[in-house]
Amino acid sequence: MKILVLNAGSSSIKFQLFSMVDSSVMASGLVEQIGENESNARIKYNDNQGSECKKEIKGSIPNHEAALKIMSTLLIESGVIKDLNELDGIGHRVVQGGASFSEPVLVDEWVVTEIERLIPLAPLHNPGHLAGIKVSLEQSPQVPQVVVFDTAFHSSLPKHAYLYAIPYKLYEDLKIRRYGFHGTSHHYIVKEAAKYLKKDVNSLNAITLHLGNGASMSAVKNGKSVDTSMGLTPLEGLIMGTRSGDIDPAVLFYLARKEGYTIEDLDRLVNKESGLKGICGSNDMREIGKMAQEGNAQAQLALDMFNYRIKKYIGAYSAVLGKVDCIIFTGGIGENDSAVRFNSCSNLENFGIKIDASINNQRSSGIVKISTEESPVKVLVIPTNEELEIALQTKEVIERAK
Amino acid sequence: MKILVLNAGSSSIKFQLFSMVDSSVMASGLVEQIGENESNARIKYNDNQGSECKKEIKGSIPNHEAALKIMSTLLIESGVIKDLNELDGIGHRVVQGGASFSEPVLVDEWVVTEIERLIPLAPLHNPGHLAGIKVSLEQSPQVPQVVVFDTAFHSSLPKHAYLYAIPYKLYEDLKIRRYGFHGTSHHYIVKEAAKYLKKDVNSLNAITLHLGNGASMSAVKNGKSVDTSMGLTPLEGLIMGTRSGDIDPAVLFYLARKEGYTIEDLDRLVNKESGLKGICGSNDMREIGKMAQEGNAQAQLALDMFNYRIKKYIGAYSAVLGKVDCIIFTGGIGENDSAVRFNSCSNLENFGIKIDASINNQRSSGIVKISTEESPVKVLVIPTNEELEIALQTKEVIERAK
Repeated sequence: MKILVLNAGSSSIKFQLFSMVDSSVMASGLVEQIGENESNARIKYNDNQGSECKKEIKGSIPNHEAALKIMSTLLIESGVIKDLNELDGIGHRVVQGGASFSEPVLVDEWVVTEIERLIPLAPLHNPGHLAGIKVSLEQSPQVPQVVVFDTAFHSSLPKHAYLYAIPYKLYEDLKIRRYGFHGTSHHYIVKEAAKYLKKDVNSLNAITLHLGNGASMSAVKNGKSVDTSMGLTPLEGLIMGTRSGDIDPAVLFYLARKEGYTIEDLDRLVNKESGLKGICGSNDMREIGKMAQEGNAQAQLALDMFNYRIKKYIGAYSAVLGKVDCIIFTGGIGENDSAVRFNSCSNLENFGIKIDASINNQRSSGIVKISTEESPVKVLVIPTNEELEIALQTKEVIERAK
Repeated sequence: MKILVLNAGSSSIKFQLFSMVDSSVMASGLVEQIGENESNARIKYNDNQGSECKKEIKGSIPNHEAALKIMSTLLIESGVIKDLNELDGIGHRVVQGGASFSEPVLVDEWVVTEIERLIPLAPLHNPGHLAGIKVSLEQSPQVPQVVVFDTAFHSSLPKHAYLYAIPYKLYEDLKIRRYGFHGTSHHYIVKEAAKYLKKDVNSLNAITLHLGNGASMSAVKNGKSVDTSMGLTPLEGLIMGTRSGDIDPAVLFYLARKEGYTIEDLDRLVNKESGLKGICGSNDMREIGKMAQEGNAQAQLALDMFNYRIKKYIGAYSAVLGKVDCIIFTGGIGENDSAVRFNSCSNLENFGIKIDASINNQRSSGIVKISTEESPVKVLVIPTNEELEIALQTKEVIERAK
């Protein structure tokens, strides 16, 4: 069984082809700068001898239609498939599923209309996803296609956790509420943790941390998300590469009145110019770590703020859960930055959290338990794999529909 | 020693006269609707026989000058003082002291200029305070006057707790940061808790909850505030009577773009039309409790959200503190609403927090410990007394200056 996973943005399409027999990656690649003069498309795959091969095509790729054609050419030329119609399924990542989608679904006309309707809630993401889905439907009409939503895992949030304390009419009329994102990643690492700890996922309480350039946390009770730090949009919550996360909303009023910021200025400020970058000028965590070690006070401040915010959420979600079985780090920073893991979990012995500094410092692939043997709360590092999770969910939906 | 405490707003002045020998209240009162046609001034005091007396004056009170003259007349007529110049000190409450004031200070020209300069940070409060201070200086030039800031107790916040993750320049140039409020109340109840628990306040770790129509929490480490839920303004943090507290700032962008809200609309929305009122139509906690008991689902939802937000902050501040000695409830809701106390602390046994439901339900004045005997974290209800705290700080500043 072969499943192709597509993550279509406004000017790029990432793809990954899985053999579902063993969840192995047969090929992966990227088409980028779609619509620009200098587009390019790349693929990585293993040939018959098992050695890693790469192909690249440069030139103008005017739109998503051309992009998917080039991807198909690359897949066929590399020999992993003979024809797109040979695929058993295509799984599409969609960031915003709103309140309409609590689960992955087979694509049909209604689904496409709904994703279109949700554009105002995800103006930067859903249009690109839609373009990818529409072209893919045209090009591979016989292949069952599934959409997997970043928001779906958080559809289990209780009302008191997903509502904002603003007029209730805004929720009723405009569906303004906490949706949460990175759901596919949070869901994947929770299931992986359950396997690793040999526990039933339906009785596992976890705090999950997806820390990358975008970053979010979730409180997971009995395997279900009951709270998460991102909100209506991916702006809320943790300090991120360029996003402020939590802030007194009145800061925006103050800047508008005193400095004449427009709504556009404010949006750009807190989404693009804030976060780690706003504090120390860089949003590259490795660079920031280096700068801090060399004595750059702003870099150290950015790290302290980043870790402090995480620590507060660990506390908040521990209170939400009552009892925590494990804390799971993932994402670029979560998987690779031992200092962030150590410092955000420091002085939490009273929470039953004890990190083994030496294990935490060792570089390794796969799942690692970085808490001490006596630590009541297990702290795990689990590499995320959103593409595989999308492939698995796609497979499940297709099989259920048969 | 007699100290008068003044809380001057834009259209009202509250006053309270203390005898500092025993911290007793000699008189208290209110001048309200200053500048309107139908102003009025009231005083409450005990006469020679110790029975409670009241006086009221109605009519037009055009400005703060007239208001303080009427107050002085009421104080003199009631016999508690013969002349304002007989006072040993006047203490003024000021909401916003910015980064300029980490302690109460004797009023001088520089102090007045600074409070004036801070008006953009507290446009609703500082102008009224200033009017009160200026008139009071004119009318009682011989009496030492002290300003006590709502922000001062939070001046001990570390940088990683008071900074927002926005461009650092906005902090440097515009002093945008977390200031926190209700400091006088948080400070007072921490000192009272230390006395009650027979502990040195300088080694006491507490989570303090001031829950009224405005509501805030603080993490207090070794007697000093190290974090607090209100921010640049009193909007951030907990759900309040009409304020949203924490919210994805992008909700504001969404409303501006999709529904045409202006900055003024948004400010009014989250400050005046949100919070408990936004969810269920009422911001009176007693009424909401009643509505919920009668089966009103929106009222129950408002309560659930209110308590849930508090619980998350209890968790967050427990993580910040590492070890918590006590949790202290105060303010109109904190002192009187046993259901809020019980529900916001429920299922926190793993935090060492165990409420004794029967003690919690008893109505009583004074300090009450509502945690069980075995509860490692003591949970206390302590009636706040911001006026007394201002009087005490005023006395201390005056005596130190001698």
